[in-house]
Amino acid sequence: MREPTINALVSPEGSLEILSSHEVNRLKDRSEGGLYRLFRQCALAVLNTGVETDDCKALMESHADFDVRLVPQPRGLKLELINAPAHAFVDGEMLRAIREHLFSVLRDIVYLHSLPETASGFRRDNPEDITNLVFHILRNARVLEPGRQPDLVVCWGGHSIGHDEYQYSKEVGHQLGLRGLSIITGCGPGAMKGPMKGATIAHAKQRIKNGRYVGITEPGIIGAEAPNPIVNELVIMPDIEKRLEAFVRSGHGVIVFPGGVGTAEEILYLLGILLHPNNADLPFPVVFTGQKENAEYFEMIDKFIRNALGDEAAAKYDIIIDDPVRVAQTMKQGMKDVGTFRRAMQDAYYFNWMLEIDPVFQLPFEPTHESMLALPLHRDQPPHLIAANLRKAFSGIVAGNVKENGIRQVQEKGPFEISGDPTLIEPLEAMLEQFVAQNRMKLPGSTGYKPCYRIVGGPA
Amino acid sequence: MREPTINALVSPEGSLEILSSHEVNRLKDRSEGGLYRLFRQCALAVLNTGVETDDCKALMESHADFDVRLVPQPRGLKLELINAPAHAFVDGEMLRAIREHLFSVLRDIVYLHSLPETASGFRRDNPEDITNLVFHILRNARVLEPGRQPDLVVCWGGHSIGHDEYQYSKEVGHQLGLRGLSIITGCGPGAMKGPMKGATIAHAKQRIKNGRYVGITEPGIIGAEAPNPIVNELVIMPDIEKRLEAFVRSGHGVIVFPGGVGTAEEILYLLGILLHPNNADLPFPVVFTGQKENAEYFEMIDKFIRNALGDEAAAKYDIIIDDPVRVAQTMKQGMKDVGTFRRAMQDAYYFNWMLEIDPVFQLPFEPTHESMLALPLHRDQPPHLIAANLRKAFSGIVAGNVKENGIRQVQEKGPFEISGDPTLIEPLEAMLEQFVAQNRMKLPGSTGYKPCYRIVGGPA
Amino acid sequence: MREPTINALVSPEGSLEILSSHEVNRLKDRSEGGLYRLFRQCALAVLNTGVETDDCKALMESHADFDVRLVPQPRGLKLELINAPAHAFVDGEMLRAIREHLFSVLRDIVYLHSLPETASGFRRDNPEDITNLVFHILRNARVLEPGRQPDLVVCWGGHSIGHDEYQYSKEVGHQLGLRGLSIITGCGPGAMKGPMKGATIAHAKQRIKNGRYVGITEPGIIGAEAPNPIVNELVIMPDIEKRLEAFVRSGHGVIVFPGGVGTAEEILYLLGILLHPNNADLPFPVVFTGQKENAEYFEMIDKFIRNALGDEAAAKYDIIIDDPVRVAQTMKQGMKDVGTFRRAMQDAYYFNWMLEIDPVFQLPFEPTHESMLALPLHRDQPPHLIAANLRKAFSGIVAGNVKENGIRQVQEKGPFEISGDPTLIEPLEAMLEQFVAQNRMKLPGSTGYKPCYRIVGGPA
Amino acid sequence: MREPTINALVSPEGSLEILSSHEVNRLKDRSEGGLYRLFRQCALAVLNTGVETDDCKALMESHADFDVRLVPQPRGLKLELINAPAHAFVDGEMLRAIREHLFSVLRDIVYLHSLPETASGFRRDNPEDITNLVFHILRNARVLEPGRQPDLVVCWGGHSIGHDEYQYSKEVGHQLGLRGLSIITGCGPGAMKGPMKGATIAHAKQRIKNGRYVGITEPGIIGAEAPNPIVNELVIMPDIEKRLEAFVRSGHGVIVFPGGVGTAEEILYLLGILLHPNNADLPFPVVFTGQKENAEYFEMIDKFIRNALGDEAAAKYDIIIDDPVRVAQTMKQGMKDVGTFRRAMQDAYYFNWMLEIDPVFQLPFEPTHESMLALPLHRDQPPHLIAANLRKAFSGIVAGNVKENGIRQVQEKGPFEISGDPTLIEPLEAMLEQFVAQNRMKLPGSTGYKPCYRIVGGPA
Repeated sequence: MREPTINALVSPEGSLEILSSHEVNRLKDRSEGGLYRLFRQCALAVLNTGVETDDCKALMESHADFDVRLVPQPRGLKLELINAPAHAFVDGEMLRAIREHLFSVLRDIVYLHSLPETASGFRRDNPEDITNLVFHILRNARVLEPGRQPDLVVCWGGHSIGHDEYQYSKEVGHQLGLRGLSIITGCGPGAMKGPMKGATIAHAKQRIKNGRYVGITEPGIIGAEAPNPIVNELVIMPDIEKRLEAFVRSGHGVIVFPGGVGTAEEILYLLGILLHPNNADLPFPVVFTGQKENAEYFEMIDKFIRNALGDEAAAKYDIIIDDPVRVAQTMKQGMKDVGTFRRAMQDAYYFNWMLEIDPVFQLPFEPTHESMLALPLHRDQPPHLIAANLRKAFSGIVAGNVKENGIRQVQEKGPFEISGDPTLIEPLEAMLEQFVAQNRMKLPGSTGYKPCYRIVGGPA
Repeated sequence: MREPTINALVSPEGSLEILSSHEVNRLKDRSEGGLYRLFRQCALAVLNTGVETDDCKALMESHADFDVRLVPQPRGLKLELINAPAHAFVDGEMLRAIREHLFSVLRDIVYLHSLPETASGFRRDNPEDITNLVFHILRNARVLEPGRQPDLVVCWGGHSIGHDEYQYSKEVGHQLGLRGLSIITGCGPGAMKGPMKGATIAHAKQRIKNGRYVGITEPGIIGAEAPNPIVNELVIMPDIEKRLEAFVRSGHGVIVFPGGVGTAEEILYLLGILLHPNNADLPFPVVFTGQKENAEYFEMIDKFIRNALGDEAAAKYDIIIDDPVRVAQTMKQGMKDVGTFRRAMQDAYYFNWMLEIDPVFQLPFEPTHESMLALPLHRDQPPHLIAANLRKAFSGIVAGNVKENGIRQVQEKGPFEISGDPTLIEPLEAMLEQFVAQNRMKLPGSTGYKPCYRIVGGPA
Repeated sequence: MREPTINALVSPEGSLEILSSHEVNRLKDRSEGGLYRLFRQCALAVLNTGVETDDCKALMESHADFDVRLVPQPRGLKLELINAPAHAFVDGEMLRAIREHLFSVLRDIVYLHSLPETASGFRRDNPEDITNLVFHILRNARVLEPGRQPDLVVCWGGHSIGHDEYQYSKEVGHQLGLRGLSIITGCGPGAMKGPMKGATIAHAKQRIKNGRYVGITEPGIIGAEAPNPIVNELVIMPDIEKRLEAFVRSGHGVIVFPGGVGTAEEILYLLGILLHPNNADLPFPVVFTGQKENAEYFEMIDKFIRNALGDEAAAKYDIIIDDPVRVAQTMKQGMKDVGTFRRAMQDAYYFNWMLEIDPVFQLPFEPTHESMLALPLHRDQPPHLIAANLRKAFSGIVAGNVKENGIRQVQEKGPFEISGDPTLIEPLEAMLEQFVAQNRMKLPGSTGYKPCYRIVGGPA
Repeated sequence: MREPTINALVSPEGSLEILSSHEVNRLKDRSEGGLYRLFRQCALAVLNTGVETDDCKALMESHADFDVRLVPQPRGLKLELINAPAHAFVDGEMLRAIREHLFSVLRDIVYLHSLPETASGFRRDNPEDITNLVFHILRNARVLEPGRQPDLVVCWGGHSIGHDEYQYSKEVGHQLGLRGLSIITGCGPGAMKGPMKGATIAHAKQRIKNGRYVGITEPGIIGAEAPNPIVNELVIMPDIEKRLEAFVRSGHGVIVFPGGVGTAEEILYLLGILLHPNNADLPFPVVFTGQKENAEYFEMIDKFIRNALGDEAAAKYDIIIDDPVRVAQTMKQGMKDVGTFRRAMQDAYYFNWMLEIDPVFQLPFEPTHESMLALPLHRDQPPHLIAANLRKAFSGIVAGNVKENGIRQVQEKGPFEISGDPTLIEPLEAMLEQFVAQNRMKLPGSTGYKPCYRIVGGPA
């Protein structure tokens, strides 16, 4: 049975978004080059918060009659929503958080598409330009707060986790919040929502009125990980690579909770960067944590990393089991170290300019059957490149699991094939199987996971 | 083993409290007439938040070396705490909520003890004077907000409830918060904390920055029901009767969750007042609610009320089982009716001046073996007086359970005796037994409940 | 011709005043003990801002049909004004400043008359009690700001001054404001308004949003010196002596502009206090200042002080002619010294508890023909008592000039007579004559000044 | 003698400006394409506030050793100033207003120079694109406030006016401020400062904390009309035409005080636009006002307009002499009409999208001897084009008077020559002579005005 829908006229209470006539026209443009389709898709995703689904394609199809229109007003802009999912409303009035998210989507889509052609001489494949682009998007979204001490903890982990894992992530968020720290996540459910909820309660206890619950997403993933309503700063980055760069440049430390391939992608991205020789002395606190039951899980991750990237990589993180207070204290101390370092280097608190990111981590990876099979998963390269290529492998599997484009490819041509050095891909295969066994690939609701990948072995 | 303690100097960040030299001297005065002892006792109770205990006497004894001193400062006043319970601190720094609570205690104790002798011609036994006194205390505590629509929902219920009951109260608070309503409770744990926590998350989702979590307590109960840290407006009333009057005059509706004798006292107080003929047309939404498992509990309460006070009394409340959304919608609608009525009557939103309270509900009841036995629990009186006397009976049992003075009396002379018309006191006895059986008399931790009362039957 | 009037219903926008039923009744009470008459009189004075008049009695008579009524409202209290002077309105809507002043009057009158009988054992003639009373009134008026560095400059001087003197006082205020300092004055026109206006512009340039323009008045003087609309904190003290104590305890330094007998009263009050041996080491910056044309005036004042009180008294102030920047820098430095001292002594920034004030300066002086003639103006007493008695002489002349009660006495029995040691009263007479000659006794508009005093010489 | 200078490190307190590495590099770039020179020049102009000068060239030369450098900081960006004019400081600390202006200059210069190349397909000569550009600059400067009712009154008039004219403009500002209106001007001294000062005092009296004092300038004029420190929103537009468009699109009405050629340029620009047939029904209140002594001046202007553009043009404005209250009431009523119209048309309050501006008013006019002589000042064109060409003539004279580029041309080649239909240019010549005679061409200080133009007659 279909969920009930509501028509509504929504005003951007508290938002600052006002558009020029150019921008309005571009948003209304339903042609190929226009922004209407993208805006409609992201708007629907945002309205779908709270509905647990993995399948963006299905989401879109089940709301084929949804529409969104711009209505200029003397006091700014309103949005008219046709057939919007009813659960975004309370007694007929749209939840304020979702209203804000809608206008964040609007803001970022307009900005992203005014930008690339913008900066004179801006090149899409120039590393420095990419970093500047990430900066500009975050600044436009008002996520960069100049007057603020380092306090933003990236929380990564599965959007599909068990009740106890969820409670644990909440308690970690609570301890972070009690220490005045804020949260930045991928903005979906599970380990992305738990810490925010815990921090909300803790911030209330500490009377912190400006607690930050930042969600960074991108059009390909927003459908599967709709922003939870605690998120009070939502940013839509243009692609997964810029989303990841936004995390490591605006966040001041990272906590990893148990998760699946998405989390693995994030871990490899992070370690790949931290292993760059130029980043050797850069303070960047990283903690892997979970409840007692997750100890094994992190042993597996740890072993996988040590095997693939070496012990040096393992020196970049702490594993803390079942101790939210120590996790929070470790982060708090790490924030202080980051602050001290930035002051010494005159680098900004709000954006980690000094972090060196190899272009291989910046350039978008487009997963196809060809590109996946072609991934050079061998040992004849420095560890940070092994990390980069493993990261791409995980990224492709995420796409095959939940992204519209990936799902379609796999439906059409069968699973992605991955090959490479057996000492790398056999542990990879084993880990993926574990993820499947632990239900970390898909949301609990879905019946049985059908892998979208196949390890074919052989030299890469 | 004794809990660790901490010494600390605490400043009233965000508080407005500044004292005259007279007031400082009175607070430092350790003599009988001085305020030091009372202030120390309440301060300790506030610091003990989160520690579940019923026994104020034990609390005081186990912290015999606790001390609190006033330290004047150029920027106002600081408090020096000696041997304060460590759990009031996060990494050595006192939780901001508790800091605020300490200064609220200070504010109210100073004010209460400047007041009674104050107003020219003020009489302790004059009903109108008592109501004005309640108003003055609330105003001084800045609880009366002139510009605000009715939105304050009183939540009553047990401080000692099961996990599921707690979750249910949280969900009700969440639904209230989503509708922009605020919470006022007795400020302890259990059904007093759940709704606040739920509302906190909901207010975050609705971006409500000025959500109210009001806690009203009194010196006799604060030890057993230490304010939870969500409470952002704490008021210490001089005694239980003025505390109850503060609830019904500043709150705009009441939700009752399952509870024990304290909750029963509150129900009888409320119905006794609402049954006054002058209040017949006054809108005052009252809902009894709980999860499916509590349906029986509320049937028992309903039956008890219908038997003791008549069906007219039962017309004053709705019973809603397992439906937080409907509870919240009922309250929301009730608030609107209250607003309409007050506008029509030109009565204040922030204080229910029109509510008629019979003096029998205002004058303090001092439970002793004599006064308890003398309670006229017979049917030869109008229903609102039956309610008043039953209310006193419950009040005495609360005192015997958790208040310092009550516990001592029972220790010395055995249980309070209660007698009266069997058609009244037999159902009373049955209900009390139910409370005992359902562990609603004491906190879960305590081993076995030893009744502090005895029903002796016979004509009152 | 009579000025037009307006009827209006005024709400306390931005004000926090809410009243209990007791207080409302007292304010409505038109009997002798009731507050209605006092409230009506002060309300009318406040509405008369901008109308330059000296004669309270005339003011009251010309508005005999003015009335003010309390109208309870759901959102607080409104005031209904009947026949209010039209110039308090802009296009039919009351100036916001005046609305605030009305509610300040309400607040203080209610508080003053709940207070005296208040504090247990409070005695009207006990110095410590009086100081505590001043503190309580200021605290209730929210004038004591705990978190603020010393920044409050008392500006004294004539309400009746020439255009150039006014411009000079404005420029001094401008320089004070540029340095982040705030102004506290008697809240009327002339030298009380100029510095506030100058500081307003300077605060705008420095983006200081919380600049303070405090006006301290009392019922006897408010008619002649209606608060100017810049005043954003208005306090009504019960009498002139408590008003003066409010200045020296809440202000952090004093600037004296040219003025008449009121200013002379203030100077003598201030010096009398600073000459107390206990205050010898207390930093308290005092500057007498005016434009070049006022150099002579201050020479006269200086000579008068040296003759009457000795050179020690003259060491308490600096005279700075025609140099607003240096005046402001002197005050700024003085504020720093005050801050340093208070920190060292742990005394409050917001209230000068350590300043010793001899009871002779605290107890109200009631000027009558008898009390004026009886003033012991001889040299057989310590300087601070000579100052005290001269202060009373000036106070009596102020009353005879502008206060309702004083004017009536003089109308009935002729001028007040003053006698004493010729070495004291002859300079006094000379100075008074100068004031008359310079038009400092009355507003420029009034035709010719008829002295309300007579120096009769002879031993006191 | 040279004014003293100060070196200082200035932080952007209260500002939100943070820059990307790209932007920092561009600002540091001292090459031709870089922004350093422009930034330095505008920064110096801003620091020079309060110094009355007409001659930008002289200003630059007398501060040849002034320098400004960007200093990245953990909390954002600081500016290091070398040899900054001392009068921008109070006791060694830079005035907060000037600090803000410096960072506004930074913001706008960076934005302007990222923008033109920006929007895909943006064309410099496309009217719609120009309007969108003006919108984007104003939005980036946060001048467009979506939630605000129309309240922004453009005040035009001479920067070089007499004391009485200044007082009158202040009183008009005071009356506007009392009615809750805000001011937008060219941000220099004289008639641009007076209304802001008056409004500041009035806003203080009405407790309006968010009063707006918007200054719109451009690099060519900022040196001659340094922003006065009351200006709390400063915008640097790229050229005079976009500056004028910014006024008429963001302001809601216009008051014209007496002025010289700059004011005449503004009047003709405004009337030229309002005469466009598409704007016939658009409410746009315009008032010419001055004191009694200015009555003749406005008669001259009125006659000039009627002769050149016809009576229809004169119907676009009211002339109100010596009546600030009526001026303010007229504007207040006009604002209401504007609001009603925008609501009816669903046009934004904050940007007048519906106003039709002929491209002839948008495209930059570059005054040279050739372009000035070539101006088609004949009657064979519709009135709004006559207005456009007269506007250009005045614009050229402004440049010859005060702009660096214009002054140099005139120094090199003699006065600009203007020719045309005698019925147009003879009244023009007469009016210009009046401006000279009334000292409206240059600041009072300058000795004798040497015309930078010559009327050569003959057919255009």
